[in-house]
Amino acid sequence: MERFTSFVIQELGLQPGTGDTPTNYAAGTDRYALYKAGPVLAVSHGIGIPSLSVVFNEILKLVHYAKCTDVTFFRIGTCGGVGLEPGTVVLTEKAVDGAFQPFLSTTILGKKVQRPAYVEKPLLEELLSCSENTDDFKTVTGTTMCTDDFYEGQARLDGAFCDYDEDDKMKFLNNVKAKGVCNIEMESLGFLAMCNHAGVPGAVACVTLLDRLKGDFVSTDFSLLKSWQHRAQKLVLRFIKRRITQQNRHKNG
Amino acid sequence: MERFTSFVIQELGLQPGTGDTPTNYAAGTDRYALYKAGPVLAVSHGIGIPSLSVVFNEILKLVHYAKCTDVTFFRIGTCGGVGLEPGTVVLTEKAVDGAFQPFLSTTILGKKVQRPAYVEKPLLEELLSCSENTDDFKTVTGTTMCTDDFYEGQARLDGAFCDYDEDDKMKFLNNVKAKGVCNIEMESLGFLAMCNHAGVPGAVACVTLLDRLKGDFVSTDFSLLKSWQHRAQKLVLRFIKRRITQQNRHKNG
Repeated sequence: MERFTSFVIQELGLQPGTGDTPTNYAAGTDRYALYKAGPVLAVSHGIGIPSLSVVFNEILKLVHYAKCTDVTFFRIGTCGGVGLEPGTVVLTEKAVDGAFQPFLSTTILGKKVQRPAYVEKPLLEELLSCSENTDDFKTVTGTTMCTDDFYEGQARLDGAFCDYDEDDKMKFLNNVKAKGVCNIEMESLGFLAMCNHAGVPGAVACVTLLDRLKGDFVSTDFSLLKSWQHRAQKLVLRFIKRRITQQNRHKNG
Repeated sequence: MERFTSFVIQELGLQPGTGDTPTNYAAGTDRYALYKAGPVLAVSHGIGIPSLSVVFNEILKLVHYAKCTDVTFFRIGTCGGVGLEPGTVVLTEKAVDGAFQPFLSTTILGKKVQRPAYVEKPLLEELLSCSENTDDFKTVTGTTMCTDDFYEGQARLDGAFCDYDEDDKMKFLNNVKAKGVCNIEMESLGFLAMCNHAGVPGAVACVTLLDRLKGDFVSTDFSLLKSWQHRAQKLVLRFIKRRITQQNRHKNG
């Protein structure tokens, strides 16, 4: 989060030492980290939808009371790819749960509520157009599967529990691929459902750390992984720079 | 986590500087914290069942490969109370989800699986017997409601979203109380379901920070809250000390 904020400061040409040095404003708690650099608020959300939902509620209230306008939310993260070369950036079109349902199923006052989880097409296309021919990685769009568990929930064989075998796993993952799922992670469904419900544009950009059709375990060199994690950040930052340029043009013209 | 480990070191009479000084063995990641003090492993699990499930899988594998024996798992935390004086310690008998189902509902290979989430009676009674007449707080046993969301999932009125009113909220919370629920938090269901499925004894001790029948917001003085958070830790540490004494007696006799 701190490294990303330094990257934002550098790319947006902000002056550190004028309130834009990376400061963790949530340092009083060890639950989340929160940094601000110019017009960019960078927030960690922990693992899984429940963890994300707490901080998402609070950030929504924050931007509301701060009277922010033209707000766009991004989840930037890592994921397992499905039939993609590791290091590929996936931009989510829609998120589905571990049973392929395209909505967040949540319980309010004891009753199940369903909230759809998709990205508005113009935002998705605008973000996709930020990929460049000279990029040393591919950027694709597709469905993201969002699970509540990293091991059994994602058909891994190397968790503490495993009541299925390699054949069951591959049958499931091939079905996942056949249904148009490009990647698997643990937050997109909650993130997009909350963006949609709040009426705030939101998108998800995640880099694949491995191809789940080929294994369960990330075996790539650590420094290479670090550079891959930077890819989705780069893409989103291009989007932010474009938007700032457009706004400045609008203001000046 | 570090403060708790220091407390364990002090209470168990361990010598710091001999491998028992508080060291975060998970410092390489910002996702979890992991400390060891003598026979006690203290691990943070983040917020919500998905976050807990990742580290729980890994700790189960760790204690398995380390050939640990007589392992007992505890979740020690905070919660909202239902009709209890704030500062009360609740020992969970069984956990239910936000719709009162007494099992974890999780998705494996695209199919729903249900896993019961209860505490074995002898363990619950042994833990309850660690409360003392001279304690300046009450310790009770009861059902714990475990939700996937802190705001709407727990009928709060102060989240970013709220499609219900005070009357709906109180009707729900009174129903929660009528069904024997003593407290509400976000991890017990996953924790106990995983303990039960692994065949490892596990219990949950949480201190209530407020009475949800009286409000949504913790207004207690911060230093008092800190002292309350210590209460469940104290209780579990008494349990650990008793068990160590019993084992030493067994070894020596």
